[in-house]
Amino acid sequence: MSSSPQGVVADLTEDRLLAQVLPLLAGSRTERVGPGDDAAVLDVASPLIATTDTMVLGRDWRDDWSNAEQVAAKAVVQNLADIAAMGAVPTTLLLTLVLDPQTQLAWVLDFARALGEQCRRYAVSVAGGDLSSAPAGVKMVTITALGELAGAEPVLRSGAQPGDVLAISGPLGRSAVGLALLERAASGTALDAREEAALAHHRSPSAPLSQGPIAARAGASAMLDVSDGLSRDAARIARASGCLIEIDSATLAADLNWAEGLVPRDQARACVLNGGEEHSLLATFPDRASVPEYWRILGRVEAPAAGEDPGVHLDGRPLTEAGWDHFHPVR
Amino acid sequence: MSSSPQGVVADLTEDRLLAQVLPLLAGSRTERVGPGDDAAVLDVASPLIATTDTMVLGRDWRDDWSNAEQVAAKAVVQNLADIAAMGAVPTTLLLTLVLDPQTQLAWVLDFARALGEQCRRYAVSVAGGDLSSAPAGVKMVTITALGELAGAEPVLRSGAQPGDVLAISGPLGRSAVGLALLERAASGTALDAREEAALAHHRSPSAPLSQGPIAARAGASAMLDVSDGLSRDAARIARASGCLIEIDSATLAADLNWAEGLVPRDQARACVLNGGEEHSLLATFPDRASVPEYWRILGRVEAPAAGEDPGVHLDGRPLTEAGWDHFHPVR
Repeated sequence: MSSSPQGVVADLTEDRLLAQVLPLLAGSRTERVGPGDDAAVLDVASPLIATTDTMVLGRDWRDDWSNAEQVAAKAVVQNLADIAAMGAVPTTLLLTLVLDPQTQLAWVLDFARALGEQCRRYAVSVAGGDLSSAPAGVKMVTITALGELAGAEPVLRSGAQPGDVLAISGPLGRSAVGLALLERAASGTALDAREEAALAHHRSPSAPLSQGPIAARAGASAMLDVSDGLSRDAARIARASGCLIEIDSATLAADLNWAEGLVPRDQARACVLNGGEEHSLLATFPDRASVPEYWRILGRVEAPAAGEDPGVHLDGRPLTEAGWDHFHPVR
Repeated sequence: MSSSPQGVVADLTEDRLLAQVLPLLAGSRTERVGPGDDAAVLDVASPLIATTDTMVLGRDWRDDWSNAEQVAAKAVVQNLADIAAMGAVPTTLLLTLVLDPQTQLAWVLDFARALGEQCRRYAVSVAGGDLSSAPAGVKMVTITALGELAGAEPVLRSGAQPGDVLAISGPLGRSAVGLALLERAASGTALDAREEAALAHHRSPSAPLSQGPIAARAGASAMLDVSDGLSRDAARIARASGCLIEIDSATLAADLNWAEGLVPRDQARACVLNGGEEHSLLATFPDRASVPEYWRILGRVEAPAAGEDPGVHLDGRPLTEAGWDHFHPVR
């Protein structure tokens, strides 16, 4: 944390606010033309990998649960994870901030400082963006991330083949358990130190970004990052590839044990199977030998039986998709 | 307009909503990988030109004044004008829609259909995007636009030189006059047919996009699109280039005459000098001979006198910057 300037965004003109924000965003790359002109001018490799993801106050975060630094970290990681999940290396961000003019100036500067830190950490630049005002109570962050392939073809969701193995880099359920603990705390039960520590990933997620290109070079046939939950995201690979994905629940034991130490058993299971915002990478590989270090096997890819739709099984039984849907949040 | 489906966004799952929206967005280019994976894969030329711009309900449009088609057209044009103002040709959009789940499904489909039409008109594709829910009453559109140079160097704001001439492609004041008429109508005075016709540019602006690359090839030394008003945008060129820009009010006579036919004289003058969302292209050229067809000369670039700050003069007197500031709207 840092100096806490007084006042709100509306105390400054747009130009003066930008003059305070832009230096904080300086990343570790220098663009040919960065923020301040009509558009940025970027030296890029073709093909370009591009994605965009938004966070909205009240939907994707609560200001009483996450501070500005945590919101910035989450916004960056969820975008960079989408780039990594193509087997690519992120290079550049564009940032849109839409703010109630009564937003505290300190929040904006803390956000920008943390975003700049994330950019330096992941070696990406902020090449441009937009700053806009919003009705009372609205706060929103949109990032567009660009990246390039690191010597391999892009890994899509649609390439899984019967006979492949399913593997994951990173754990499952951490973000969802953190959210469950925050909800418990909001209902009046204080959290102990171990529970507080378990909130870290929900508030400020990390993602195994470097494993994306590693998986691509190892021959991954399909990949995505777990943003809406294992059940929903595995089903996306299954449907896009026209396959059946069989998950062995024994491979989830470590995640389940950890979660059951913090929340009731049923909730722990739901967190591991359906918890979103995890940003672990889920991929299929042609065989066990090709699965890289730091990945663990969760199951296998099969051909659907005659007349059966593509989908996901857990221990041989259909797994219901119950992850995150923006217009129908289920917790 | 088109079929009007009943119901609201919340009646559908996110996946079903996307299944209805995505086909409507199909542009005239085919990407290597478009919407539906973690990220898009795009064949691009380097350097890449990139910009992002947001529209927020209640700030950038009112649903009782602009329909979904008009919001889509405005969102596309303001982004593409930023690409053109670099001397570049737009190729690709990424779209973020943040919607109150109670948003009418018909609005979303009309928006998507109109956005797709704009994309085909300007030969760009929608390569990806994000769909997110928002608190009640919130509706927001963010576009990131990508483009490529058409055989010239990018034209920045900072290249104007003493001795250059200032020129514009497109009129001034149309959008601001349209807004003034809408405000008059909202206060109870019905608009006549001529006034209704004058709203067209405010509701669904056009921009002389092809003139951006033409100006670049003609040797434009600085360029931007008039998004926040002539006084503010000319000052941006002046400051970035360390120059004084002298505008001759006689060159604005046609814009002033048109505006004075619709709103009181003082307001007409303010609309022409300070009106934003116009998206005409404003540029400096090394001499009169290099100014292309469809551009008209507004003035000239000079060196500031000793001790004088860079800025804009109108008929030799300092012109106050009074255009659009997101956090301090003045009308």
